[in-house]
Amino acid sequence: MKRIVQKYGGTSVGSVERIRHVASRIEKAAGEDQQVVVVVSAMGKSTDELVRLAGQLTESPSKREMDMLLSTGEQVTIALLALALAERGVEAISFTGWQAGIETEDNHGNARIVSIETERMEAELEKGKVVIVAGFQGKSSKNDITTLGRGGSDTTAVALAAALSADRCEIYTDVTGVFTTDPRYVPQARKLQSISYDEMLEMANLGAGVLHPRAVECAKNYQMPLLVASSMVEEAGTIIEEEITMEKNLLVRGIAFENDVTKITMAGLPSRIDTLAKVFQALSENGINVDIIIQNQTDEAHVDLSFSITQSSLKETLTILENAKAELGFHSLHVEEDLAKVSIIGAGMVSNPGVAASMFDVLAQNEIYIKMVSTSEMKVSVVISEDDMVLAVEMLHQAFQLGEEEEAITA
Amino acid sequence: MKRIVQKYGGTSVGSVERIRHVASRIEKAAGEDQQVVVVVSAMGKSTDELVRLAGQLTESPSKREMDMLLSTGEQVTIALLALALAERGVEAISFTGWQAGIETEDNHGNARIVSIETERMEAELEKGKVVIVAGFQGKSSKNDITTLGRGGSDTTAVALAAALSADRCEIYTDVTGVFTTDPRYVPQARKLQSISYDEMLEMANLGAGVLHPRAVECAKNYQMPLLVASSMVEEAGTIIEEEITMEKNLLVRGIAFENDVTKITMAGLPSRIDTLAKVFQALSENGINVDIIIQNQTDEAHVDLSFSITQSSLKETLTILENAKAELGFHSLHVEEDLAKVSIIGAGMVSNPGVAASMFDVLAQNEIYIKMVSTSEMKVSVVISEDDMVLAVEMLHQAFQLGEEEEAITA
Repeated sequence: MKRIVQKYGGTSVGSVERIRHVASRIEKAAGEDQQVVVVVSAMGKSTDELVRLAGQLTESPSKREMDMLLSTGEQVTIALLALALAERGVEAISFTGWQAGIETEDNHGNARIVSIETERMEAELEKGKVVIVAGFQGKSSKNDITTLGRGGSDTTAVALAAALSADRCEIYTDVTGVFTTDPRYVPQARKLQSISYDEMLEMANLGAGVLHPRAVECAKNYQMPLLVASSMVEEAGTIIEEEITMEKNLLVRGIAFENDVTKITMAGLPSRIDTLAKVFQALSENGINVDIIIQNQTDEAHVDLSFSITQSSLKETLTILENAKAELGFHSLHVEEDLAKVSIIGAGMVSNPGVAASMFDVLAQNEIYIKMVSTSEMKVSVVISEDDMVLAVEMLHQAFQLGEEEEAITA
Repeated sequence: MKRIVQKYGGTSVGSVERIRHVASRIEKAAGEDQQVVVVVSAMGKSTDELVRLAGQLTESPSKREMDMLLSTGEQVTIALLALALAERGVEAISFTGWQAGIETEDNHGNARIVSIETERMEAELEKGKVVIVAGFQGKSSKNDITTLGRGGSDTTAVALAAALSADRCEIYTDVTGVFTTDPRYVPQARKLQSISYDEMLEMANLGAGVLHPRAVECAKNYQMPLLVASSMVEEAGTIIEEEITMEKNLLVRGIAFENDVTKITMAGLPSRIDTLAKVFQALSENGINVDIIIQNQTDEAHVDLSFSITQSSLKETLTILENAKAELGFHSLHVEEDLAKVSIIGAGMVSNPGVAASMFDVLAQNEIYIKMVSTSEMKVSVVISEDDMVLAVEMLHQAFQLGEEEEAITA
């Protein structure tokens, strides 16, 4: 018998009406002679409300107690969903993270799953029941409740699918799949039928927030096929799996972009072996996330160092660097705000260096000035002015023919 | 070192401000060189809100899933209280029912505590931490979350106190103690310094809703001294314990009363050996709670049977009896509504039969007609017209000198 894991996010279970709708979808899936495991998030804004309550009591909450608090959100959803299924005559049983045997590290607020003891879930599936599991949570070896941090519910679903040897993990969300680029900005954006784990990882890391990279990595590790589709409309989604059996002729599969990028240049840094380490250690110790890094030797004794950060961490970054000015020994800091990062992504890119050149050419033809460049095996990213972002994405989308129908090619 | 268990109910933790106040009280208790365990309920109306959500999904919810749902209420409170304590510099750790090792029967919605594994709580207490436990909940041997039903949080507190060999269990609530009668009706009502378990049981069962009888029974079984006091005002409460070291000269300790009593009389029931069993089986199978029962032989072949129920179960009771009329074979049903029950309570009563006579005399002098009487070792209850209830209580309170100051008598 086939076995699937379905995951419904916070918006999909955001109200009693939505939960009823999800129950009707699960009923349908369970009626197709397959075993169904469902992972759900907390209802809509309920987590925010709990965070607000905690915020009224303390500014520096214990992470263990926040996990205790926030894990109630998913627990409410699993119970309500079980009630909604029972009302439709579908036998279902709900499990918290600890009841589902999800053991994690004891790193509260951001715990990784260590193992899943599937015995009880297996028993209930064999009885023909739909098994509902609270996403985002588990328990540590100390029997403390832990949460998995960002992307936690997606990760729960994929990890459960792997542990239960499911045939597929289905992630239902408020978009209908993975697009060649963000359709809110580029109307020509086209939904992909399938995409590889690595390509999806680049898409996810670059701000196409459909699926958390952690969940994609986990799926890749276990070669678990993922379906990303809408919980609201009936429409084929995007399959994420290892082998791209179709469309392999396309070098560029998608375009990711994000704004709120700020570039900082440190001019006249002494060229010493530990210069870079010192700068980025100081930043990482303060939780500043640095994205693209470019270093340029200006003379024998000095380098210019540029890197990009998010707009929101600018103030703190400047404070940290100014405080370390004596130690680091740079001349001056230059800040460039209101930038954006645009990236083209595709697994075939690695064997075709002409792709980056094509990208630069498209941007040049549209008089878009490139401020930073970063490349990896399957992506090329450029930092440009925020004002040019949408134009750049549209032009690249068109140049790489992403809006055109895919040709089905048999392997 | 002394060890105490404190319990705060839903009103006491009904808001962030209230939780802060409770934290300040716990800080004080923990500063008095004693180990403190705290049991809390769900915040104010949060349980009602969860019940409302479930009610929108189904009219006949699974009890297991309702336990899953409702147990989140206390889990939210324990986490918030731990945060509030940490903010005051008090080291605290919260535990759900299952984490506190509270194992129950798997009778969902109304489970009894079977055992408590105290190891982890003991370890945290030894470290000097305040241990916070979610009331009202536990886990079954199947690892399912259970709730304890009415009076559950009080019972959790008393059971924990027993399992942890605490010196005392303190129940903080919105009243300042146990009164000779309800002060909202009788201004002369006086707070008792102490009362015995059995007297408290009679008071509790008779509608003086300070403390659930289940918790009192548990305390009696383990001879655990209970303090009932206010969480809002600083004022000595009432101690409930086995030996009454003071006030032993008083025969009547308190007066309990409740309205909404309805009397039903079944006239002309055949006088057979199984008549009573049949009637009350039919009622109990339908969840009708019968209080006072009076049977009177009218002739050799027939009896009249009267019993009291609550107003709210009248309609169902009549339906059940009418449906069983052929089988039971009675002539007619008579209903008397708008009645009240008034009871005098005191452990010394058993050795002094004159007390009941004094009660009847007081009522007769005030022209209050007695419709039913029921007696036990430490109480005498009468059913009277609801209109006479407050007068009866006032007159009895005065006649038995309950409003007068207690004399301290050393044993």
